Amino acid sequence: MSGRDLVDLEDLDEGEIREILRMASGHDPPRATRTLDGKILGLAFFEPSTRTKASFTSAMLRLGGSVVDMGEPSTTSLAKGEGFSDTLRILSGYCDALVIRHKLDGAARYASELLDIPVVNAGDGSRAHPTQALLDLYTIGKIKGRLEGLSVGVLGDLKYGRAANSFILAISRFSPKVLYLISPPLLRPRREVLEALRRRTDFRIVENPRDVIGELDILYVTRIQRERFPDPEEYERVKNSYVVDLELLKEAREDLRILHPLPRVGEIRNEVDGTPFAAYFEQARNGVPVRMAVLEWVLGHGGA
Amino acid sequence: MSGRDLVDLEDLDEGEIREILRMASGHDPPRATRTLDGKILGLAFFEPSTRTKASFTSAMLRLGGSVVDMGEPSTTSLAKGEGFSDTLRILSGYCDALVIRHKLDGAARYASELLDIPVVNAGDGSRAHPTQALLDLYTIGKIKGRLEGLSVGVLGDLKYGRAANSFILAISRFSPKVLYLISPPLLRPRREVLEALRRRTDFRIVENPRDVIGELDILYVTRIQRERFPDPEEYERVKNSYVVDLELLKEAREDLRILHPLPRVGEIRNEVDGTPFAAYFEQARNGVPVRMAVLEWVLGHGGA
Amino acid sequence: MSGRDLVDLEDLDEGEIREILRMASGHDPPRATRTLDGKILGLAFFEPSTRTKASFTSAMLRLGGSVVDMGEPSTTSLAKGEGFSDTLRILSGYCDALVIRHKLDGAARYASELLDIPVVNAGDGSRAHPTQALLDLYTIGKIKGRLEGLSVGVLGDLKYGRAANSFILAISRFSPKVLYLISPPLLRPRREVLEALRRRTDFRIVENPRDVIGELDILYVTRIQRERFPDPEEYERVKNSYVVDLELLKEAREDLRILHPLPRVGEIRNEVDGTPFAAYFEQARNGVPVRMAVLEWVLGHGGA
Repeated sequence: MSGRDLVDLEDLDEGEIREILRMASGHDPPRATRTLDGKILGLAFFEPSTRTKASFTSAMLRLGGSVVDMGEPSTTSLAKGEGFSDTLRILSGYCDALVIRHKLDGAARYASELLDIPVVNAGDGSRAHPTQALLDLYTIGKIKGRLEGLSVGVLGDLKYGRAANSFILAISRFSPKVLYLISPPLLRPRREVLEALRRRTDFRIVENPRDVIGELDILYVTRIQRERFPDPEEYERVKNSYVVDLELLKEAREDLRILHPLPRVGEIRNEVDGTPFAAYFEQARNGVPVRMAVLEWVLGHGGA
Repeated sequence: MSGRDLVDLEDLDEGEIREILRMASGHDPPRATRTLDGKILGLAFFEPSTRTKASFTSAMLRLGGSVVDMGEPSTTSLAKGEGFSDTLRILSGYCDALVIRHKLDGAARYASELLDIPVVNAGDGSRAHPTQALLDLYTIGKIKGRLEGLSVGVLGDLKYGRAANSFILAISRFSPKVLYLISPPLLRPRREVLEALRRRTDFRIVENPRDVIGELDILYVTRIQRERFPDPEEYERVKNSYVVDLELLKEAREDLRILHPLPRVGEIRNEVDGTPFAAYFEQARNGVPVRMAVLEWVLGHGGA
Repeated sequence: MSGRDLVDLEDLDEGEIREILRMASGHDPPRATRTLDGKILGLAFFEPSTRTKASFTSAMLRLGGSVVDMGEPSTTSLAKGEGFSDTLRILSGYCDALVIRHKLDGAARYASELLDIPVVNAGDGSRAHPTQALLDLYTIGKIKGRLEGLSVGVLGDLKYGRAANSFILAISRFSPKVLYLISPPLLRPRREVLEALRRRTDFRIVENPRDVIGELDILYVTRIQRERFPDPEEYERVKNSYVVDLELLKEAREDLRILHPLPRVGEIRNEVDGTPFAAYFEQARNGVPVRMAVLEWVLGHGGA
């Protein structure tokens, strides 16, 4: 059986991305299969994330496999001073593929180079979160029937937000009609992300979502955290401009759909949940089929 | 496949309760089966309880299914400020049925109304703990051969104790000969519980277990916590009256059997463990067969 | 099906030890089997150890079984004041065999006497860690082709180190050519270990690894913890003498192999990892096959 890593969506060509999305649609809604019967997935979450962990666990179980959780950071041997490479090497002896989450950029790449088993990045540093980006793309394909030619707005913390950056880089590869980057000036994407975008697509930096809401097919919302602002008054001044509510949506096209990686903390008002705009719960549900596809893909099942 | 919730035993008629107890006896002792093969049970414990969690896990595994643990309260997205309904909606995407424990009355009901999948209440607030009440009833049926016509004493914290209240309401439906509520005045059942009892059965409020021990078929013991007493001296004064030891049991009938939801912290002396009175370890063992029955029942397997 | 406990390697005769090692080689490398299909292994770790837990979990899953984790010490009912025997009795109702780790000597023995199901000691107190000792022996047999007649050095904290003591007692039963106990005077083995050795084998107490490195077939390294020294200056003075680096290994025989129970924190320099001396990652990988053999052995599968 072959094996591959999924470290960064930037490593995959469009054909590979479409292959995974096609495999995901075969698992939607998720049903019990036996394709990974007898396989063990290791969960190495050096940064806590109950939800992503539960999503991978559910995906692996649906495929007939099982899961070994390597524990929370504070209880691992890292806390005793063990080196990261020792930890990885030892954990890799307990499983057939390893899912890793880490606060540092490059941690998943390092693991994939060190280990013989497939490594899946469940989010590292501030940019790479490839399974989230895949489920975002999958959701758009499912609700819009296509990935290309869409007017897309991405709103919130575009500087530090892992999911936002991962999505911006992913969608920019599918020829958006236009890509709006909507944030306070302080939270615009970093230079290296903007440079990558420049080579790929037409994008525009926007400060107020009201200016573009009427044009959008997709609005991808993320949280703006108070801690990002050196000046608390500045935060108080801008925060309401980035809340999505019925008032803002009066200007929206009827077929606008709103995504959010969740959890949300007030940045999309509950009053939006019952409208046809809300696609974020559907998006959350797509996490399992997409991760089922990813696990089959890295472990060499399915696909061409 | 159909699906039902188990939120409160008060929602079930006696026929349904007996059906679950009958299904439980088919799993006693628990053996590996395949009736829930491929099914996933989600564990959403917003209040920690290792033991109840382990009991549900064991039951699900015995049925051939598997489990996704949504993590401890402090590590979930709730800690980040996410709304309860968002959390529930997302977790429900990872599983076929959800077990929920929560400190607030009504949390399981709310979940059952929000979600499309079956919800099992593993204890919420101060009154509802239906799987505990079922295993209490199951134990009585097993050791006494019947549920009806018994002289039952319930001792301990009858005001705040979840298991005690849940048991009182459950046994009162099976025509006890008499039901003694034995507690310090401060820890008598709340008014709404007493009112429900009044419509169902003959009960008596008792302060000293010595006064009734000679009459009982069943003595259900629960813990009295020091923290419940505004005045620590009052606690010290009464606590020894509610300890079950060989001295107290001298007055007991030979066929008295003692239950306790466990853990115990001194309220039943270890010297009682070796006597025929002790049924609490047997009761603990019944947790798995009863929860196997509950999981089959909510997921639409077995039963009529 | 029969069942046995594995509490202490001292309880097994050499034939039984060799039987388990032979069974382990049938699981190396580990592959999915169904020999424990439908069985549940309970994990009762009263002392945290993510890694040993993950290793047992992986082993049980490879055998087709499943696992119920009884939770971390702080979240168990022990924290509420429940007695140890109550906890054990209740946990035993959830599983077919119980793995226990505890800081107190004798905890696993106590559990094995109390419970009807097989008990596996995953380390208790300062001496017994039988599955670690078995994987140490297995590794030596695999890389040296034999257990007997070897020159073995054990280096580090020989007073408090659980893995070191467990290994010393195990290897002493296989007629080493000579056994060197290498440690600072403060951390020499306790009297009862030395007495057991005296009845079995030729051993020598050594202070400086340089004095014997040239003779060794096997060097078993363990950590020396700063906290063991009443006088911090004494620790600073000796610590470098017990670090294994290329400098020390200049004197070594070509076929010396180095073991370490891991995690390490600097006591073997990373520069050693790439040399043929390093056998500690191989040793770590042997944990799963050996624990698969142990689980089959206690649950009455395989063997003669």
